[in-house]
Amino acid sequence: MQLLKDRIRKDGIVKQGNVLKVDSFLNHQMDIELINEIGKEFKRLFEKEKITKILTIEASGIGIACIVAQYFNVPVVFAKKAQSINIEGEVFATKIESFTHKKTYDVIVSKKFLKPSDRVLIIDDFLANGCALVGLIDLVISSGASVEGIGIVIEKGFQSGGEIIREMGIHLESLAIVDSMNAEDGTVVFRGDK
Amino acid sequence: MQLLKDRIRKDGIVKQGNVLKVDSFLNHQMDIELINEIGKEFKRLFEKEKITKILTIEASGIGIACIVAQYFNVPVVFAKKAQSINIEGEVFATKIESFTHKKTYDVIVSKKFLKPSDRVLIIDDFLANGCALVGLIDLVISSGASVEGIGIVIEKGFQSGGEIIREMGIHLESLAIVDSMNAEDGTVVFRGDK
Repeated sequence: MQLLKDRIRKDGIVKQGNVLKVDSFLNHQMDIELINEIGKEFKRLFEKEKITKILTIEASGIGIACIVAQYFNVPVVFAKKAQSINIEGEVFATKIESFTHKKTYDVIVSKKFLKPSDRVLIIDDFLANGCALVGLIDLVISSGASVEGIGIVIEKGFQSGGEIIREMGIHLESLAIVDSMNAEDGTVVFRGDK
Repeated sequence: MQLLKDRIRKDGIVKQGNVLKVDSFLNHQMDIELINEIGKEFKRLFEKEKITKILTIEASGIGIACIVAQYFNVPVVFAKKAQSINIEGEVFATKIESFTHKKTYDVIVSKKFLKPSDRVLIIDDFLANGCALVGLIDLVISSGASVEGIGIVIEKGFQSGGEIIREMGIHLESLAIVDSMNAEDGTVVFRGDK
């Protein structure tokens, strides 16, 4: 998605350790106009999948998922990072390791909101090692629903998550795949760039 | 807002301890169509305030704030619950006590995203004791920006938050104010009900 790549080049900040900061437009301050364009693009890419529900994970996926959901006319469900699982039995639960925060979360979705008949589109802002996505896929499978697609705003193509998910045979679309970045001169190379 | 009150009566669940669960349409599963109507109503209520930015706090406020922001054509900034404040100097920070989770969070907003010229509308799903809101107001004041309004979806009118905020002279609008609820028969009494 050219608009997104242009914006990453303009306002993204490359930091040491392969960190790409997009907090001025995507995950701290949010440019709603840009995210609407992202919503239209996901609609185009997943139009045929007869999506009934959009699933994401708190926190930074929620706003994107809500804007995207308008183009599919379906509800959003966001998985919660649980303090403790004391609602056993009423929820689907999984564990997700966060490398950013160096801890493991219990992540839950109420059984009321994922049903075997649901055709789920998973939406998230970033895909790196894929831990969060694998956890979300696990929640959907637990419910008997199907993962009909995964829409990612920015994929770090040099990490393994994208490959893991694609090898599962899931329809994954990333609107910008970063193949490399350089913290010294701030440049970003996207997959498909000449 | 009648549509919202009707929905709370229909799908809200009253639990012991003055807990009102609205997780089927507002803060776990999200009914985007309803939230669009909420957005239109906030636009009507705060139309004159020349809002330049919407501020909320993760996690459940984010989706609502993003949908609402579309009616104001402004960006959303969400305050983050910090793991630790190791970015001192670059952020406005405050502490917010959560009674639900029985802990105190450091809450931060990057200094890049709140400027003295900003006219801020704060959006959140619930107002009870007001701790989260007072923290967000504190962040805005730290930045030199002005709080032009606060839009709340559901206020627990029998808790002190609403009174505290209104006594500050801030333009607070709650779309549904619950004056009492009864866990035994599941009834909810809204302010203004006959």
